Amino acid sequence: MPYVNIKVTREGGPDGLGPSADQKAQLIAGVSQLLQDVLDKDPATTFVVIDEVALADWGIGGLPVEEYRKIAG
Amino acid sequence: MPYVNIKVTREGGPDGLGPSADQKAQLIAGVSQLLQDVLDKDPATTFVVIDEVALADWGIGGLPVEEYRKIAG
Amino acid sequence: MPYVNIKVTREGGPDGLGPSADQKAQLIAGVSQLLQDVLDKDPATTFVVIDEVALADWGIGGLPVEEYRKIAG
Amino acid sequence: MPYVNIKVTREGGPDGLGPSADQKAQLIAGVSQLLQDVLDKDPATTFVVIDEVALADWGIGGLPVEEYRKIAG
Amino acid sequence: MPYVNIKVTREGGPDGLGPSADQKAQLIAGVSQLLQDVLDKDPATTFVVIDEVALADWGIGGLPVEEYRKIAG
Amino acid sequence: MPYVNIKVTREGGPDGLGPSADQKAQLIAGVSQLLQDVLDKDPATTFVVIDEVALADWGIGGLPVEEYRKIAG
Repeated sequence: MPYVNIKVTREGGPDGLGPSADQKAQLIAGVSQLLQDVLDKDPATTFVVIDEVALADWGIGGLPVEEYRKIAG
Repeated sequence: MPYVNIKVTREGGPDGLGPSADQKAQLIAGVSQLLQDVLDKDPATTFVVIDEVALADWGIGGLPVEEYRKIAG
Repeated sequence: MPYVNIKVTREGGPDGLGPSADQKAQLIAGVSQLLQDVLDKDPATTFVVIDEVALADWGIGGLPVEEYRKIAG
Repeated sequence: MPYVNIKVTREGGPDGLGPSADQKAQLIAGVSQLLQDVLDKDPATTFVVIDEVALADWGIGGLPVEEYRKIAG
Repeated sequence: MPYVNIKVTREGGPDGLGPSADQKAQLIAGVSQLLQDVLDKDPATTFVVIDEVALADWGIGGLPVEEYRKIAG
Repeated sequence: MPYVNIKVTREGGPDGLGPSADQKAQLIAGVSQLLQDVLDKDPATTFVVIDEVALADWGIGGLPVEEYRKIAG
């Protein structure tokens, strides 16, 4: 009965505002399949929770991600 | 000084858009009481954080929860 | 299909090394019941994960919890 | 390659609606610097994720935080 | 720059004590690939953290998982 | 009343087995101070939880961290 939490930045997707419902469904299907393949976990008791995180709320390299990308090129 | 995180799908409640403020208050009171009863934890240092998760962001059975319910019946 | 994570310090319990299996079972039962009572959530799809956190790994008041308690009295 | 998650209540900041982008940038910079100073962690592989939590979703003392403050004074 | 947290019960694997290092590597590779395939995320900035949770610390159906399995059959 | 979770790999420190108690105390003090400086948060209600993660349980670049470092040089 795994629990998987996937955090991604809220960007990209069909309108630039984050993953589409279809892309999220692909993540849910894919990670549930992966846990079944590798550890024989039953998807019926695999939970997946996806969090979209605003760009201002995600930091890397000591900077908000948008600032970081300007510098990291 | 426990920390409790409760994640529920954003549905139900008085307007179908998720738990009401009163229901959240009941969760906070109930889980704080539980920790005091079972482990003698002081509610004054018990934190409870509730996350409402959009239905598209929650997966079970390899599917987004709404798709899963159609199949699971 | 709620997901609940309960973090408590690793202390107390029958041997001073943390909650007993029976106390953990009470937490699991109690929080699952609470979610059923307040939000009508089915316990069959309620996950509860308990984390015991070493005292040195928990901070409050800017101090590790054991130091904090000496001062807070 | 640390991962840091900071949860704060959604309040305060320039408009009372939560930390400003600049304040978040200060949190990201500060905690990345701290991990470099104390544990020699490279900021380039330090992730920081900030979550703002609505007041109704945060409990302390067995009460939602706003109720708690009225009582705790 | 996704962050993925995978929680599984500490069981199974080559010695019954949880996933092997190789199985964990497969989970890390698989979920990083999935995020690249679905959302074009660069694996170089995809973090994966795996938590093994003791059976006594995982609840479902209002019971510790081992008790639940006896009943659910 | 912030809640901060810091996850670091279990390595380094005085014996190579992870941060020392003193280093953890520095992290707790530093991040509590940061939240007071930036957001005027009272350390008395700031919780910090530190998780040490085994190297085999942390992935980056699609690989367990030790494999990744061999390649990334």
